[in-house]
Order: sequence, then structure tokens, then C-alpha cells
Amino acid sequence: MQGGTMADSSGPVWTPLVVLELASDTAEEAVTWLLRRIRDTQHNGGADLLVEQLGLGVETQKKQNPNLFLVGASNQRLLAGAEDVGLFKEYSDGSMRGFTCASKHNFKDFNGDGDGFLSMAECQYIIKHELDTLRAKDETHVPGHSHAKLYPGKSIIRRLQSKGILIQMFPLHEKEELKRLSFSWFKKLKLSLQPLDDIRHYYGEGQALYFGFLEYFTFALVPMALIGVPYFLFDWEDYDKYVIFAAFNLIWSTVILELWKRCSASLAYRWGTLSRKKAFEEPRPGFHGVLGFNPVTGREEPTYPTAKRHLRVYLVSVPFVLLCLYLSLYVMMIYFQMEGWVLSIHDEEPTFWTGILLFIPSIIYAVVIEIMNLIYRYAAEFLTEWENHRLESSYQNHLVLKVLVFNFFNCFASLFYIAFVMQDMVLLRQSLATLLITSQILNQIMESFLPYWLQRRRNKKMIRKVQKRATLQDKELPLEEQVRLEADMSTYLGTFDDYLELFLLFGYVSLFSCVYPLAAVLVVLNNITEVYSDAFKMCHVFKRPFSEPAANIGVWQLAFEAMCVIAVVTNCSLIGMSPQVKAYFPESDTQLILWTVAIEHCLLAIKFILSFLIPDVPKQIQVKLARLEFESLEALKKKKLLEASELAKTSQ
Amino acid sequence: MQGGTMADSSGPVWTPLVVLELASDTAEEAVTWLLRRIRDTQHNGGADLLVEQLGLGVETQKKQNPNLFLVGASNQRLLAGAEDVGLFKEYSDGSMRGFTCASKHNFKDFNGDGDGFLSMAECQYIIKHELDTLRAKDETHVPGHSHAKLYPGKSIIRRLQSKGILIQMFPLHEKEELKRLSFSWFKKLKLSLQPLDDIRHYYGEGQALYFGFLEYFTFALVPMALIGVPYFLFDWEDYDKYVIFAAFNLIWSTVILELWKRCSASLAYRWGTLSRKKAFEEPRPGFHGVLGFNPVTGREEPTYPTAKRHLRVYLVSVPFVLLCLYLSLYVMMIYFQMEGWVLSIHDEEPTFWTGILLFIPSIIYAVVIEIMNLIYRYAAEFLTEWENHRLESSYQNHLVLKVLVFNFFNCFASLFYIAFVMQDMVLLRQSLATLLITSQILNQIMESFLPYWLQRRRNKKMIRKVQKRATLQDKELPLEEQVRLEADMSTYLGTFDDYLELFLLFGYVSLFSCVYPLAAVLVVLNNITEVYSDAFKMCHVFKRPFSEPAANIGVWQLAFEAMCVIAVVTNCSLIGMSPQVKAYFPESDTQLILWTVAIEHCLLAIKFILSFLIPDVPKQIQVKLARLEFESLEALKKKKLLEASELAKTSQ
Repeated sequence: MQGGTMADSSGPVWTPLVVLELASDTAEEAVTWLLRRIRDTQHNGGADLLVEQLGLGVETQKKQNPNLFLVGASNQRLLAGAEDVGLFKEYSDGSMRGFTCASKHNFKDFNGDGDGFLSMAECQYIIKHELDTLRAKDETHVPGHSHAKLYPGKSIIRRLQSKGILIQMFPLHEKEELKRLSFSWFKKLKLSLQPLDDIRHYYGEGQALYFGFLEYFTFALVPMALIGVPYFLFDWEDYDKYVIFAAFNLIWSTVILELWKRCSASLAYRWGTLSRKKAFEEPRPGFHGVLGFNPVTGREEPTYPTAKRHLRVYLVSVPFVLLCLYLSLYVMMIYFQMEGWVLSIHDEEPTFWTGILLFIPSIIYAVVIEIMNLIYRYAAEFLTEWENHRLESSYQNHLVLKVLVFNFFNCFASLFYIAFVMQDMVLLRQSLATLLITSQILNQIMESFLPYWLQRRRNKKMIRKVQKRATLQDKELPLEEQVRLEADMSTYLGTFDDYLELFLLFGYVSLFSCVYPLAAVLVVLNNITEVYSDAFKMCHVFKRPFSEPAANIGVWQLAFEAMCVIAVVTNCSLIGMSPQVKAYFPESDTQLILWTVAIEHCLLAIKFILSFLIPDVPKQIQVKLARLEFESLEALKKKKLLEASELAKTSQ
Repeated sequence: MQGGTMADSSGPVWTPLVVLELASDTAEEAVTWLLRRIRDTQHNGGADLLVEQLGLGVETQKKQNPNLFLVGASNQRLLAGAEDVGLFKEYSDGSMRGFTCASKHNFKDFNGDGDGFLSMAECQYIIKHELDTLRAKDETHVPGHSHAKLYPGKSIIRRLQSKGILIQMFPLHEKEELKRLSFSWFKKLKLSLQPLDDIRHYYGEGQALYFGFLEYFTFALVPMALIGVPYFLFDWEDYDKYVIFAAFNLIWSTVILELWKRCSASLAYRWGTLSRKKAFEEPRPGFHGVLGFNPVTGREEPTYPTAKRHLRVYLVSVPFVLLCLYLSLYVMMIYFQMEGWVLSIHDEEPTFWTGILLFIPSIIYAVVIEIMNLIYRYAAEFLTEWENHRLESSYQNHLVLKVLVFNFFNCFASLFYIAFVMQDMVLLRQSLATLLITSQILNQIMESFLPYWLQRRRNKKMIRKVQKRATLQDKELPLEEQVRLEADMSTYLGTFDDYLELFLLFGYVSLFSCVYPLAAVLVVLNNITEVYSDAFKMCHVFKRPFSEPAANIGVWQLAFEAMCVIAVVTNCSLIGMSPQVKAYFPESDTQLILWTVAIEHCLLAIKFILSFLIPDVPKQIQVKLARLEFESLEALKKKKLLEASELAKTSQ
């Protein structure tokens, strides 16, 4: 923790870790009250953290929000917090164990008073947890804000957030570490594996797992890409070869997804999140309902009947999604009609203008799809919010599912139509290539370079502004300006969009692999640049996100596996429809279809058996986990025997 | 525990719970050594149990094995053992918690010194566990048996078992309780639900779950049976109606299997096995290998490389199973040829003798199948033994899978052949009915009445023998004779065969439901008698089995679900093949098949989505489990805060 340090009014120097931004019109008494609650000892129901207003004593410029607060904590407090959140750290024997203050000296790298034992990301996570679990006592409302009611035992921070008093809470970047990380990650020129441990150290397990998956996925596609190259080079149009390629692809994608589970288990074990127990989850800020008692904690909190939520999901959200899918289908049909109409005009009298006209439908369709995606995204967020999920995780899952289905449909519906209704393989290959390449280019621009450019402009403005006031020796900004700059950076909204992109790319590779083997090559190339652009945007475009402990990629594993199953169906049908295969069954279509279906069922069966046979956690890690459990059981037994024998001695 | 009691040589009266039978040629010093080890205090590495030779002081008759030992334990010891095995009991607040001696008075029904707190089955399970974990110290071999080597830290009992010195170890029946149980179970005439809690009390969770599943399965089939009746009564041959029936069946079977998971979770929660942690599993008695160190415990034990086992499984067992399946197929083809041949003879010149000849192939085929099943069962046991699995559970899973596949094939191959190769629906219905009814009748006879008759003969003989020596007032046998009688009873080999039978019945109902709706009716009738005959054989035919804690029906859930998936495929194809459906697509078969396949895929998708949507554990129980976890976390936190504040006080 070599970041900027602060001298507390009372004495010792501490590192600011997290920034709280309150609305500029917050009542003064509310600020005082909040700071007192944060500073108060745990015994008095406080969070026992250090907090200081940013730029205290320095006059703030107009238009700047003065209510920025820096939060930190003493080393002792952070270690106690690590025990609270159930952090797993490396033990002296190399295994991962839940950290406890009592046994702190048995942990690896714990020296002296434990300075540097916790990474900055871990400290920030702990502070977030401690702030989140700061509970209202007997206050009825936030002082000075009588509309912001408080209920005993409820999280204060979440309440302030949902009432708009707390604008944001974010962890600070650490310039030196970030520089080192970005050098080892994407700035050095030689190709190497990603520094996953460093990424985890700086951004936490959720981010590191995403980059691990991105890297794994890229490597996993290399064999497919290598096999795909000769198809492109030698222009193999022979369907026998395509069949082999498709079969290889289907088995391969099952195997890589299964192996990824093992791989992610290994990573999660190394990072101590595999066997970490989830603490009780608090309701998300937006959750509302009649005040009642939580059946788990017995505390008073808003309750909302599950049946009502189910009704909302199944009677409103599901029909809405289906309607949107239908609309998307309708737009697609219009596109194909326009396409046909334009083509007929061009065929009648081909001029330069009709040649340009040929592109118009595709452009309109692409634009409409983008607009529909945007609108749908808002609608999905609104609907999921309205479904009123109690837990953030449940909210996320429902949102992911909604967006996933629609995006899948939008991306692939036209390809499905071309493949199975028009049965035009040449057009399919062409559309696939066009869609894949344009979406890749667009994505890279929209995702990294545009935000980067905007951020850079803001950055320069800020530097100029600071330089106006004082001549800086180096280009480093002072802490205050740095904090204000970061507060203005865009917020990283989580790995959702990144995974979605990978998911759609996986679709391009697997769904129609037997007509366009080059897709894997393109995706591999894209992924390599994706690693760099994603790394870049994490380091330079976005606010630092809070680290999130994660043991796997969650619902995305399921999504990729579902894609894999759909791919079996599409590839089998594509092969069954190919003229070369049809030539094997000259007398009847029935035989052909029956064979295709039989082979498809066999492939599906093989997939399921494979995923059943390959254990999700590597043997080696299973043994390590079993050993830990065994040791703790034995220790318990030994303790009991000792107690019993002591009891026997004293009673003698 | 009102059973026969024994006066220990040292004093207090105790209840014999478990019988150990050593080989009659066991060296005297081995017996003395074993008894000493069992009686020794835990501090000295003993089991601290009570043990006495059966009929000590009474001269044993010739031909009778004198080496029968009764094992029991003091109340105190049993309670300590309950904590060792991690038994869950009902807490005073109605939740299920792991029993600890320290908090014993907070458990419901714990009065005084805890007499009657543990059920006899639990006591017997505890004694089995304590005997199993009695470990060798520094002995190099069993005294008097130099070939029976011992290794420090290894289970003595398992060693004795695998060396043939310990013939058997079984728990005693409790006559009074058994009488009560059998009355409430099957002897009273009015129909009622099975006394699952009593069954669990007497036989343990594994048995109770089987009977629970049997009952649930019977009730679940009632709707199908009710719908099936009119098809039979009104002779509906209309395929439209069959389609509706089949579709209902498919969705219904998915739903009932999913609901069973919830049901079994509720039962397991009530019985305290749901959240019970599995203790470290010791290697099974037959496991052998090079002496090495167990990576989990660090103890010396035989080790066997996993890779070698995999080689044995995939290079020997799997090909062997496939070969057997091929053989079974071959036998089936011969049967169909014979059938055709006999039919042609009968058609040429129908006489009385050719009429009888018509039955010959079926009889031969049935007998051959039975023989093949028997031989295969031995082969499967031999192979699975040879695969050298370390754990009993892994051994069981491999054995179940092998036997399952072969039995499935033997039972249904001929039906598949008739349905899809011969496409003769009338013959299919006929064969289905014949197979179902004969197998039900045979099963009931072979399973219960035959063993019962044998047992009854033995029983009478014993009573006569006893009566010869002394005139008994009532027909109750004295303890010694009772023990000898039970030692001679057949051993119950676990729920395997019972589940297998249900599995095959489920196959008859679901696989071809659209051609024979009456199957469900027959299976419901069979299940009702099955409940009685199974209950009867548990109470009167077999030795009491050790109770086995179980939280679900394990691999059988998977097997039933797999059957459900296969049923979708078969039913869709059967409907697609029906002339009525064909009539909808007069112009082309292709359209028909494509529709059939599309509908099949939709049904499969619905199945998977359903099983994904229905949570495996009921909400209510999830909440209870979450509350327990939350409370223990909170208690820990409170304890820490208290310690911290005390520390602060003392340092002041």
C-alpha cells in the first residue's frame, strides 16, 4: 500500500482506500452523523474505520462537489475485517485456509504487524464489506433528511444509496502498482501468458477469472483454427472433410468447456475462493416491499412474496421477451424482403446507383438491430428491476438470461434463416464472414478506443486546470486531483458485456463451423487483440472496480454449454442438408434424415457422457480439500480427547 | 431398548446390540486379543465397548460355532459415539443440529442420562462405526494368525473381515419394536401411508428413503393410471388420444422426478441427513495395493494408481459390457428367428402340438435371459472387485451402472426390436403386457415368498430343537437361540435389487406409454403389493441390516432421469410411425420425420428447462438451513466481540 497517505487529525499516517461521494446538497448534520458512525468503535455499533473529507482545509473550487470522503482503516482493523469476510490466504504449509487473527502468524508472508499481508484490492473489499454492514441502530431517519427513513439493523450505506444521498462509492487506483501491472500485462512487446495472479492481486478474482477464461478460450480455439486454415488455403469444398471438421469441433468444444471447469477450479483454489463460504447476502439497494421479518436472520427488513415475483417473471417478463423475439423476427423478415426487392431492381437494370442500393438493406438492418439491442437492454434492466429480486446475484442472473436470449436471437436469427429456410450455403458463408468481421471491428472501437479517447480528453483538461494553479514538477497529479479525476471516470459495469461478446464469438465458431472453418482463425485473432484492449480499458479507462470473490464464471458456463448443445443440432442438420451427403442416399430422403438424427442423438449422448465422466475438480485439488477437512476433524477429535482426559484427571 | 439384556461380568446390565461372528477355528489368543482391544478405553486406543461371548457358561452343542460375541456399550459411550459419527438430532427449537455431548440438554427428548434418546438403529450404527475405526497399534499381525498382517492405523475389523477371521457382523432385531413396526406397516388392514418415520427409526435412512420413494412413485403413477383406464375400457385406438397421453406422460415423469428430489430433501432434512457432513471414508475391505501413504490422512495404507484403475475400467470392463450387450442382442435375434420358424410350422399345419410349440421360443428365451442375467451379475461383481475401487461408494456406483445397463438392455431390447425394426404395434402391446405381468409375478415369488418359506422352515426347526431341550412357556426364544437364528438368516444385500425392479417397471410405463396406457395401472397394482412384500421380507426374512445414513437415492435419481430422456425419444418415434399421424402428411415422409424430430427436440428442451427451473430443495428448507448457518456465524462473531471487549477490559 504505497499509495498517497493521509495524516489523520488524531495522529498516525494512513492510506486512503475507498472514496465515498455524497450528493452536494447533503445536510451537514447528515455528514457529521455518517462520519461519526463510520469512525465509532465496533462495540458501539460503528465500523471502526478512518475517514477524512477530501481537501479539508483547502478551498474547493466552484462547481466541484465538496462532499468527497476518503475511507481507510488501521492494519489491525483490516486483519479483523479479513476474518469477518472469511478471506482465504496461503498457510505456511502451502494450503489455503480461512484467515483468523488468532492464527495469523501461521500464514505465509505474515511478518511483523501484517503490513503488506493483504493486497490493496482485499483491503478495499474489506472496507466495502464493513461499510455495507454498518447497520442503523435506533435512528428513525437520516439526520437532516427526514424522507430517508432508517430501520434498526438495516444497512445504512445501501439506504443512503437507494435514497440518492450516497452518489457513489469506489476504490482508488494505485498508480505505481497499476503501472507495473499494465507493463507486465500489455505494454511489454514479447508475447507471454497473462499475469493472472497480478490481475487478481489488483482487480480481484472475478476479473482475473474473466481474463483467465479469455486466455484459455483463445488457446482452446487454436487447434480448430489450425485445422481451419487448410480449408481456406486449398479451397476444400469437399463435404467429407467438412464432416470431419464439424465432428472434431463438437467433441472439442465439449472437452474444452469441461476442462475449463477444472482449470477454473485450480485457479479458484489457488486464490482461496473455491472452498470459501458465502456470507449471508443482504438485499440489494433497490429491493422494496412490506416491512416484515427475514426468516433467516429474524431481522426486520422489506419482504416481497416469491409467488408475486414468479407471477411478474412468468406473466410479464417471459411474454415480453417472447414478443421482442417475435418483433426481431419480423424485422428480419422485412430485411430479407428488402434485400430481395433491391436485388430484383439491380438485376433488371444494373447501374452504379443500384449497386450502392444493394448495401442499403444490410446497413439499415444493422442499424436497426443495434437500436433494438439498446432499447431492449434498457427494457430488460427495467423489467428485472421491477421483478424486485431480493439478491443482487438473482437480479444479475435474470438480467443476463434476458439479454443473452435476445442477443443470441438477433445475432444468429438471420444466419439460421439463411441456413435452414433459404438453404443457401454460399450466402451463409458470406453473411457469417461479414457479420463476424464487422462485429469484431465495431466492438473494439466502441469498447476501448472511444472511451479511451474521451477519458484522455478529460484527463488533459484536468492536468491543464491543475497546471494553471500551480506548476507541477512532474506530470503526477496530487491526491486530491487524482481522486476527482477518478470520480469522473466511467464506471466499469462488470464482466457482463465482455462475456457476452465471447459468447457470441463462440456462437460464430461453433454453430456453423462446418460451412466456415475460417471463423476460428478470425476469433483467435480477435481474442488476441481483445486481451490487449480489455486490459487497456481496465487500466486506463474505467474507475477501479471493487474486487469480487468468484470461484467460477457462474451462469456463463451454462450459457456456453447450451451453445455447445445447439451447435450439435445445427451442424448435424447442415451436414445432412449438404448435396455431397445427400448423394449417399440417392433413393430416399427419409433414410438420410433418419441417419442424421441418429448421429445427432449419438453425439449428444457422447457429450453428456463426457461431461459426466470428466470430474469438475482436478483430483489433486480434491485431495487437498479432503485433507483440510480431515485435518480439522482430527484436530477437533484430539481436542475433545484431551478435554476428556483432563476432566478425568481433575475428577480423580 | 427393551431387548434382551445382559449382565456384564463386572456389574451393570446392558443391551446387546451387535453380533460378531468369528470363524470357529480362530485361535484363542486372537479372540482374547480382540476382546481386549474392544474393551480397552479410548485413551489406550481401544473402542471402550462392552463385549461378551454368547452363551458363556452354557455348553454349546456340537456343530454350533462357539465364537459368537455380543457387543454393546454404556449410555455415556453411545452419546460420545453419536458425536463422533456426526449424528444430527432434533434441537429444542425444532431444527436439526449435529449432536454434541456439551449441549446435550438442549436437544429435544433428552431426559436424565439420555436413555432412549438414541434409537436402537442409531446405537447399532454407532457401534459399527466404533468397531470399524478400531485401529491397529504396534501389532504386526493378529495373534495366533501370522498370515493376517496388521498395519499401524489400519482398521482391525476390516482386516479380520478380508482375512476371513471375522465371518459376519450384524445388528440384532428387537422383537417388540419389530412387532409394533410390522403391525403399523403391513399387518393392519386399513390402507394408510407407510410409517416412514418408524421405518427410519428401525432400519435407518437408506431403507426409509427406499420405501418413501416406492410410495411416492406409486402415488405419482396414479394420474397416469387413471388416464390409462378409459383407453383400455373404451378400446380407444385413436392415435390423437395416444399423442395426448404420451405428451402428458413425458412432462409428468419429468415433473415427478424433480418433485421427488424436493420430497427426498424434506425427508432427509427431517431425519437430519441433509446437511450432515460425510466423514472421511475408509478403504473397503477388499481394496489392496502397494503400501503407501494416503494423501489425505497421511496414514500408511494400500495405494493403487488411479490411472491403472481407469485402464482396467475402460480397456477391460467397458469392452466386456459391450460384448455382453452384443451377445444379448445375438440371443434376441435367434429368438426372433425361432419365433418366425415356429410360426411358419404352425401356419402350415396347425395341430395341438404346434400350438404348444408356439410358446417354446418365448420360454427358452425367458430362461436364457434369466441365466444370462445371473452369470452377468457374477461377472460384473468380479470385474468391479478387480477394478479395485478404494471406496465402497465408488464400488457400488460402478457395479450399479454395469448391472443397470445390461438389465435395461435385456428387458427392453426385444421391445425396441419389435417397435422400431418390425414396426408391429399389436405385437408390441402384446409383448409389453406379457413381459410386464410375468416379471411382476415372478419377482414377487422369488423375492419374498420363497425366502420366507425357507426361513419359516428353519425357524420351526429351531423352535423344535429348543423345545426338545426345555419346555418353553410361550413361543419366545431365549436370547441365545434368537441370536443363532438371526445369524442364520439371509443377509439383506441392500436396496439395489429393489431399486432395479422399480427402475425396470418405470421403463415399462414410460418407454412405450403411447402404445400401452394400461401399463401404469399394472405398475400401480404391483407397487401396492410390492410395498407389502418388501416390508414383509424386511421384517421376517432377512437379518436386520445396519442403518445407512442417506440424504437421497443417489445414482438411481440419475438412472430414472436418463430413462425419462430415452422415453421422450421412443415415444416421439412411436407416434411419428403411427398410421394416423402419417395420414396428416400424405405427400411426403420427410415432412413427417422433420416435424417429429422438431417436436422431440422441443420436448427435450422443455424437460431440461423444467428440471433447471424447479429448485431441488424446497424454499422452506433452504431457509431453515440458511438460518442455522447464519446463527452459527453470528454466534461466532458475538463470541469474538465478547473476547475482544474482555481483552480491552483486562488491558485497561
